[in-house]
Amino acid sequence: MEKFPTEEKKCFEDFTEGFNRGYEIPGLSTTEIIEFATLYDPQRFHLDAQEAAGTHFGSLVASGFQTQLLCFKPFCLDVLNRSWAIGAPGIDSIKWLRPWYPGEALSIKVTLIDRRPSAKRHDRGYLRFKLGAAVDSLPTFSMEWVVIILTREGIKPPASQL
Amino acid sequence: MEKFPTEEKKCFEDFTEGFNRGYEIPGLSTTEIIEFATLYDPQRFHLDAQEAAGTHFGSLVASGFQTQLLCFKPFCLDVLNRSWAIGAPGIDSIKWLRPWYPGEALSIKVTLIDRRPSAKRHDRGYLRFKLGAAVDSLPTFSMEWVVIILTREGIKPPASQL
Repeated sequence: MEKFPTEEKKCFEDFTEGFNRGYEIPGLSTTEIIEFATLYDPQRFHLDAQEAAGTHFGSLVASGFQTQLLCFKPFCLDVLNRSWAIGAPGIDSIKWLRPWYPGEALSIKVTLIDRRPSAKRHDRGYLRFKLGAAVDSLPTFSMEWVVIILTREGIKPPASQL
Repeated sequence: MEKFPTEEKKCFEDFTEGFNRGYEIPGLSTTEIIEFATLYDPQRFHLDAQEAAGTHFGSLVASGFQTQLLCFKPFCLDVLNRSWAIGAPGIDSIKWLRPWYPGEALSIKVTLIDRRPSAKRHDRGYLRFKLGAAVDSLPTFSMEWVVIILTREGIKPPASQL
């Protein structure tokens, strides 16, 4: 995949009701879980199989932050990087619905749940996405957030350049 | 710092109203920003100084996920790893209030904003924390979430082991 796709990029108006995408990501190894947790979330149940066995998780589990990042990445490459997305004001909801154990593949579905133009600025709009991830049919993770994206008017070159 | 502190760990009852902590973290280099974004959030304004200069950010900025993780880590080491925290059901709010530019140190404040015992289980309670991070006095990031933590009753050995 190119670093930055050169095909025509989607703007606000190109995202219409019903837009959705699906991805599959492979299970993590215990080494991948431990390496991530060491850097970013060094709690015992993410770091050490023996310590984790003594907790209610029963064995090593991925950091919820690792789940969040790995579920986001395919959508970023597939959709955001092929659009005029210019950032996000935040995340409205993250839910860790069950632990993500080593070796479990995740099925991810991302759905556009709301779209609205900015009330103040004609150059941008807001797309609200919900991402859900499941192991087999067991809901494991969800995230809901808003992406800021340029409208057709927002991607026009300024008059001085015409 | 030890991997898992062996001092007596705090349980639910040890967290009382007014509990708070403060941390300082150093600014990121452009290399640290690009390395993280390549792995987890490969958008142009996190990956490439020249591409970023053409966006509304004006220059390279850290991924909001990198901000989230780096703000969380000192609290994890200082507080969660010295407690009977057993996980979190999710995150209720993440706000990226301004971009985090390379070289900007962050001041972090974490405050306990609510505490309640589980209505159903005597072995656990819920602590709601708000984390705020600022560059000088400019609010840059905030996060609000709930930590599940064992009560004194929850850390008692089962009667069969007495």
